[in-house]
Amino acid sequence: MLLSSGQLDRFRNGDGVEQETLVRGVRGAYFVNACLELGPAASRQWQIVADVDQNQAEIVALRQSLQDAADVSEQLEISVARGSDELARIMAAADGFQLTAEENVSAHHYANVLFNVLRGGIFDNQYLVSTRDLAASIGQFNRAVYERNEGYLQGLPDKITYSSLLDTARDRKDPQLARLCYEYLPITFGRRHGDPSRPWNHFTIKLKDDDGNRLLSYEGNWRDIFQNWEALTFSYPEFIESVIAKFVNASTMDGYNPYRITKQGIDWEVEDPDDPWSYIGYWGDHQIIYLLKLLELSRQFHPERLTRLLHESIFSYANVPYRIKEFTALLEDPKNTVEFDSALAGTIDARIENMGADGKLVLDTNGEVLQVTLLEKLLVPLLAKLGNLVIDGGIWLNTQRPEWNDANNALVGQGLSMVTLYYMRRYVRFLQQLLENSSGPVSLSADVGLWLTDTGKALQDARPWIDEGPVDAVQRHRHLRQLGLAADRYRRTIYGKDSLSGTASLPTGQISDLLEDALAIIDHSIVTNERDDGLYEAYNLMSRDDSGLHIDTLYPMLEGQVAVLSSGAVKPDKAISVVEALFGSDIYRPDQNSFMLYPDRELPGFLDKNVLPAADVEAIPLLQRMLEGGDERLIMRDADNRYRFNSEIGNAGELNARLDAVSADHGDSVEAARAPLQALYENVFHHKAFTGRSGTMFGFEGLGSIYWHMVSKLMLAIEEIYFSAVDDGADTDTCNKLGTLYYRVRDGIGFNKSPSEYGAFPTDPYSHTPKHAGARQPGMTGQVKEEVLCRFAELGIRVNDGKVRINPGLLRPVEFLSEAGSFEYLDVDGNWQNVDVPASGLAFSWCQVPVVYVLDPAADPGIAVLRSDGAIEHTDSLELSQEDSADIFRRSGIVRQLTVTLRSDCLFTA
Amino acid sequence: MLLSSGQLDRFRNGDGVEQETLVRGVRGAYFVNACLELGPAASRQWQIVADVDQNQAEIVALRQSLQDAADVSEQLEISVARGSDELARIMAAADGFQLTAEENVSAHHYANVLFNVLRGGIFDNQYLVSTRDLAASIGQFNRAVYERNEGYLQGLPDKITYSSLLDTARDRKDPQLARLCYEYLPITFGRRHGDPSRPWNHFTIKLKDDDGNRLLSYEGNWRDIFQNWEALTFSYPEFIESVIAKFVNASTMDGYNPYRITKQGIDWEVEDPDDPWSYIGYWGDHQIIYLLKLLELSRQFHPERLTRLLHESIFSYANVPYRIKEFTALLEDPKNTVEFDSALAGTIDARIENMGADGKLVLDTNGEVLQVTLLEKLLVPLLAKLGNLVIDGGIWLNTQRPEWNDANNALVGQGLSMVTLYYMRRYVRFLQQLLENSSGPVSLSADVGLWLTDTGKALQDARPWIDEGPVDAVQRHRHLRQLGLAADRYRRTIYGKDSLSGTASLPTGQISDLLEDALAIIDHSIVTNERDDGLYEAYNLMSRDDSGLHIDTLYPMLEGQVAVLSSGAVKPDKAISVVEALFGSDIYRPDQNSFMLYPDRELPGFLDKNVLPAADVEAIPLLQRMLEGGDERLIMRDADNRYRFNSEIGNAGELNARLDAVSADHGDSVEAARAPLQALYENVFHHKAFTGRSGTMFGFEGLGSIYWHMVSKLMLAIEEIYFSAVDDGADTDTCNKLGTLYYRVRDGIGFNKSPSEYGAFPTDPYSHTPKHAGARQPGMTGQVKEEVLCRFAELGIRVNDGKVRINPGLLRPVEFLSEAGSFEYLDVDGNWQNVDVPASGLAFSWCQVPVVYVLDPAADPGIAVLRSDGAIEHTDSLELSQEDSADIFRRSGIVRQLTVTLRSDCLFTA
Repeated sequence: MLLSSGQLDRFRNGDGVEQETLVRGVRGAYFVNACLELGPAASRQWQIVADVDQNQAEIVALRQSLQDAADVSEQLEISVARGSDELARIMAAADGFQLTAEENVSAHHYANVLFNVLRGGIFDNQYLVSTRDLAASIGQFNRAVYERNEGYLQGLPDKITYSSLLDTARDRKDPQLARLCYEYLPITFGRRHGDPSRPWNHFTIKLKDDDGNRLLSYEGNWRDIFQNWEALTFSYPEFIESVIAKFVNASTMDGYNPYRITKQGIDWEVEDPDDPWSYIGYWGDHQIIYLLKLLELSRQFHPERLTRLLHESIFSYANVPYRIKEFTALLEDPKNTVEFDSALAGTIDARIENMGADGKLVLDTNGEVLQVTLLEKLLVPLLAKLGNLVIDGGIWLNTQRPEWNDANNALVGQGLSMVTLYYMRRYVRFLQQLLENSSGPVSLSADVGLWLTDTGKALQDARPWIDEGPVDAVQRHRHLRQLGLAADRYRRTIYGKDSLSGTASLPTGQISDLLEDALAIIDHSIVTNERDDGLYEAYNLMSRDDSGLHIDTLYPMLEGQVAVLSSGAVKPDKAISVVEALFGSDIYRPDQNSFMLYPDRELPGFLDKNVLPAADVEAIPLLQRMLEGGDERLIMRDADNRYRFNSEIGNAGELNARLDAVSADHGDSVEAARAPLQALYENVFHHKAFTGRSGTMFGFEGLGSIYWHMVSKLMLAIEEIYFSAVDDGADTDTCNKLGTLYYRVRDGIGFNKSPSEYGAFPTDPYSHTPKHAGARQPGMTGQVKEEVLCRFAELGIRVNDGKVRINPGLLRPVEFLSEAGSFEYLDVDGNWQNVDVPASGLAFSWCQVPVVYVLDPAADPGIAVLRSDGAIEHTDSLELSQEDSADIFRRSGIVRQLTVTLRSDCLFTA
Repeated sequence: MLLSSGQLDRFRNGDGVEQETLVRGVRGAYFVNACLELGPAASRQWQIVADVDQNQAEIVALRQSLQDAADVSEQLEISVARGSDELARIMAAADGFQLTAEENVSAHHYANVLFNVLRGGIFDNQYLVSTRDLAASIGQFNRAVYERNEGYLQGLPDKITYSSLLDTARDRKDPQLARLCYEYLPITFGRRHGDPSRPWNHFTIKLKDDDGNRLLSYEGNWRDIFQNWEALTFSYPEFIESVIAKFVNASTMDGYNPYRITKQGIDWEVEDPDDPWSYIGYWGDHQIIYLLKLLELSRQFHPERLTRLLHESIFSYANVPYRIKEFTALLEDPKNTVEFDSALAGTIDARIENMGADGKLVLDTNGEVLQVTLLEKLLVPLLAKLGNLVIDGGIWLNTQRPEWNDANNALVGQGLSMVTLYYMRRYVRFLQQLLENSSGPVSLSADVGLWLTDTGKALQDARPWIDEGPVDAVQRHRHLRQLGLAADRYRRTIYGKDSLSGTASLPTGQISDLLEDALAIIDHSIVTNERDDGLYEAYNLMSRDDSGLHIDTLYPMLEGQVAVLSSGAVKPDKAISVVEALFGSDIYRPDQNSFMLYPDRELPGFLDKNVLPAADVEAIPLLQRMLEGGDERLIMRDADNRYRFNSEIGNAGELNARLDAVSADHGDSVEAARAPLQALYENVFHHKAFTGRSGTMFGFEGLGSIYWHMVSKLMLAIEEIYFSAVDDGADTDTCNKLGTLYYRVRDGIGFNKSPSEYGAFPTDPYSHTPKHAGARQPGMTGQVKEEVLCRFAELGIRVNDGKVRINPGLLRPVEFLSEAGSFEYLDVDGNWQNVDVPASGLAFSWCQVPVVYVLDPAADPGIAVLRSDGAIEHTDSLELSQEDSADIFRRSGIVRQLTVTLRSDCLFTA
């Protein structure tokens, strides 16, 4: 045995090694050395096992058991099998196993599900809730609510299904209890993550509490965790509305969201003077699209539920102690806009101390958590975005943080997000449909009602410009101002009282009018943002001067195409040309057959930077005078006679400071030179168009990099358009083209590549692939969520109006087995089962129900539903009844298996 | 050209490489590839130069100059030569060059001087002061003092010698100005250092300010920088008293010192809740010995100066916002004793804002810096140490920080430092001699006077016990209490007013009495701390119970021997036996022929830890009861039937908390078990005797490690004893034995070894040599300071009573050249000069004056002094006159060379 690597070189040289029983001061290791003689075709096996983190008693016990036991090897195998089985159960519960003829597709799906669970966790035990954990959780959030419901909570059985819990809790007529039960999520296996440079942020999945009990726990960036839950709820649809509740309960009165979500509540960032990376602010875009995706899921699975919740006051506001500055201050310095309200933070700390984690929420005048309707929670983030709407430009990024792409952080302040505007289109359309059958007045917090009225007025005022077009710079400026001041008025009011008060009754029509006007302006803006190359702008730049608000464009980005394709504004034919344009654009990277986030660029060489056009320099008399006097504080002339700014000047602010310093020697001529010099400086350095790290770095989201999550989002967007085209009765050619493009994009994903092409395990999802190296950061990507959803779409699993419909239009014949096989699955009772899959069949599980597809040219398409009583019911369509569908969603165990008969001609064969 | 290392493998395999002009996203590199054909005996040369940190104009200019110039290679040589010359001038100014027959000795001396300068810096330009920097520095420390002296400061010539500055400043009759001038140190080339894990702490030597002016700057740990300055002032003796002023001006009213010294003032540590390593407290021991070494230097070079300064009120107190708790609190929890006074810290910040860096000093009631005498500044740290004196035990470590050895940090609280007590002996003796000829009353701050009186009384009270001995535990306790309460009374008073007030006049005799009593107690303690193995204790442990204060011993440490040998208490014969005992002890490491800090130890294996004697367990009924009930919260029984504490219990405090928790189930029997369980816990884990990292780690100051600074301190201590033996007329045998031991210790230092033995460049000083690897951390060691001083002692340079005396008793014949040579030196005017050195000669510089030794059996020993007027004066002794000596110290240029004639029989030949 060697306890260090010190003797390895000797071993490599064929020299002997010496037993080590103690090494000190050097990194430890563990090697065993033995001589084996191996006969022909013989084999020898051994294990090296590190059983770490044991105390002395545990070691002694282990040592004794090793000495006593003749069957160590067998025990090891049992232990390994047990561990593997535990993981397999988690994977099976999340529908990770599939049996098709394409092993790489199945393996990749498994990896996607695995990493999706490793990020966001998984529901612990079907829909069962441990009432012990529930009670503890309610107590931890709100002691008063716990105390007044203690009898009820203690009287519940140990385990209760989630739906019974909601029913009995609702009977208590305690809206606060209802809120807490509604957003309770019994999730386990989630990983803790965060800045890994902090020693306490080591990657960890905590499965047991200190007493060895199974631990319910989750914790993650707001941005990450909801996307993982979106894919997860596709297998646990009864939790969709609870995830929505968790989501909206965590958004703020001014329409933004906190930084982190944990089982213990929300978290926000604070500034730490000793940590140069600490910062505060709000990321914006995901709010709209992630929330919308959850809402859409709910409507598909449970068409009535949202409508019911829309007017129920069981939703809360997060009380993040950030204060957005006044609108005029935003205009003046749009990069410094969010203040930390330390006094409020202190109050919140005291409230947490007194009442529990609910102290982080906005309270009403009685000190209870302020509760509002879902409709209000859906309107507020929309109003917040509209408050920063620049017609034809996008949503102004003015909350100190960039959108999804952190590497675009320099866009904050002057950036306009078309990405968010695209997603808003889909959101507005969704709200219109949600309110379609509503009439009569709706009740909102009075402050929100006023904001909505002001915003609606501003949108209405702009309609004539839109309809008569084009919109000019003055109009654009006036409109942003009107919207911004409406939001500002609202913020001043609510910040002043740190709450909302009163209720207002508004006719539904007023909301519908606002949505309609918003949609018109959004659609106008989308059309305007189509580029000459057939792509769409992703982000724009705004600038203001006396002649109004101006918009400049940037280079194209993949994110913009994904968002516009998801917006609903792009018809199938147009979508085809956008994706084709993408393949023909600089964004495409042939060596990886996929898309970068933006075109790669050759950055100018160092000497080509900081070069001032001679004419511009000569037009400023001060500069000539200074150079003649040998004064190089502003500019200098190099040995090639090229003018350059003094290299100590780091930005326009520093230039200004230098000018102040120079004025002592050069008097009034400095003032005359100030404006042209500033213009020259921006002209030379283009600081305004600097997008941030995305323009200078080469890893992560940098130049030349593929960011796989965005590629999978593109896949999902095309898949959605494919099915909406099918649903809308588009011609076969269009559908085929979309399907072909879908698979063309999918072909670029790693699992289709060799290890050397991908630079990593092909079946595993990776975060990104820089230009200069293979894929990087295994598993740590949102890609998995989009791909899990895509995968079920490929299999044709569609849910609409609460009913399951099989539409295998994207499924390829190549996935069907050439030989019969057996699919192993875990039933909802926790028993491993096997189902035979014939040749020309495939199998997968969904909500833990096994689904077998069989290609049969002779039979009519249909579904055989096997029930728990052994009865089999045959449908003559590819649609299940609402009851059967609901039994699957509820994992009730009544539906035990689906066998779907398909004809080849309904598959994707283009 | 390759810009990355990507193609290196191809090159290594003999394949071609391709030109690279741009690489992105990968670590950069620079390789050139060319084909050379080399004829017999031909040579080819090339250079690769990285001229970094250039702006565009500089690059263009460089490129042009490279294109134009035919003589690039020559220019490079000139540039290299200029850089080398600049470094050589710094090294020559610090007396780094020597010419002897032992090249490794000379090279090692050069390395020592180099690293000494690289740590502490060097005086900029002989004794010249830039009055521009001086004025700026005074303004930065104290704006008021600057303003009222602005005319004077602006009227000074650009450069002025330091002594004229002090003279004219003194004429201003402004004691605050005098203070600031007195502690002004025109040092440059010092390095910035600190915790390198902080990004702003990158190693840097800043030589120029932002405008390109030569920068005067230094910055370092208090502990590091004063030791480097000690060696430096041996070559710049006129600055000794200014370094003393800097030292004492930075010590606090309660007798401790701040953490860092910079040209901008002092710094202290603050606690940072986000940094688990941040902590506050005071390190103690270096205060006494480092200050003393400087005081001794001053007395040797300038016998009158200290006496004059003793009663001059131009010294200040640092106002570190730490507050040592009350004496009873120290006894109760000696590990938590220092509080940070945030309010005072805020006041200090405001003062800095208002007045300058002097705001960090203690102010008087007028808001001016409180100024006191040097005598007071010398007494206060001694009183602080006496306030923690445990008779026969050492100085109680109760200021949250260990002493010199950071790895002994667990000793804080219960540790007693004999090391400090040894050094105090030398300090007390020095003060006695300093006050020998004083009589009449001395003036001190009234609070200090009272403290001194109280402390003197306490010491006097203990004298009878000492004289009659032995001292028992009760007496020891009573005495510590009396001393501690005296210090406590003082601290309460001064903390309350954040200053000192009033003056008291004390008879000198009262101080002499205190010193005499202190000496008696110290000497008694030293005798008591001799160990059976002939070594002396370094640190002890104290414990208190009803029967008084008890002392336990620890293992022997090298530091204890160094300190006792330096104390003055060990006579030459005894010193010989101590060093011989060291060589015979476990501290000696034969493979490196040197000494570890403590004996290496085999730590018990994991399973041998946490084993409870069965009898002890069975004597506590509670434990049996719990085990029978399967309750393992306190102890458990392993599979081998050994009892073990529950592994979750981390310390005695946690054991106590567990007992509290257990008492709910086991009632009163828990209280009965508490005391025996605590005793058992300490018995099993020996937490009290745990010294800290020094007992568990293997690098740095850990087990098996040699820490070279301590070895060099041992050398210096033996050298001091050697010369004091010579001075005291000891017999030749004793002197020879001491000299032999000196060289025996020196033989272990790296420069005597091969690279493979040393594991590093042998001539370079390194911090430490762990057991498992070669020497570590080049140059970053205090070793250099001791060795620079040792080296001049080897050469026989002795200064006493202001006169230079050559005593080559430690110099070995082997150092004299066998062939004539030439010694290059830099004269005080900055001109490189050469002096011929004959065979049987050697040469070195001191205060930049070349000194040539010549062995001549025919001639009488004597010194030939070459003056600037060309005259040569011969002395017939090895002593210089006070005037010649002072001219050398002052670097006046009057003495241009010393040629010393020696006889072989005065050299060290044992």
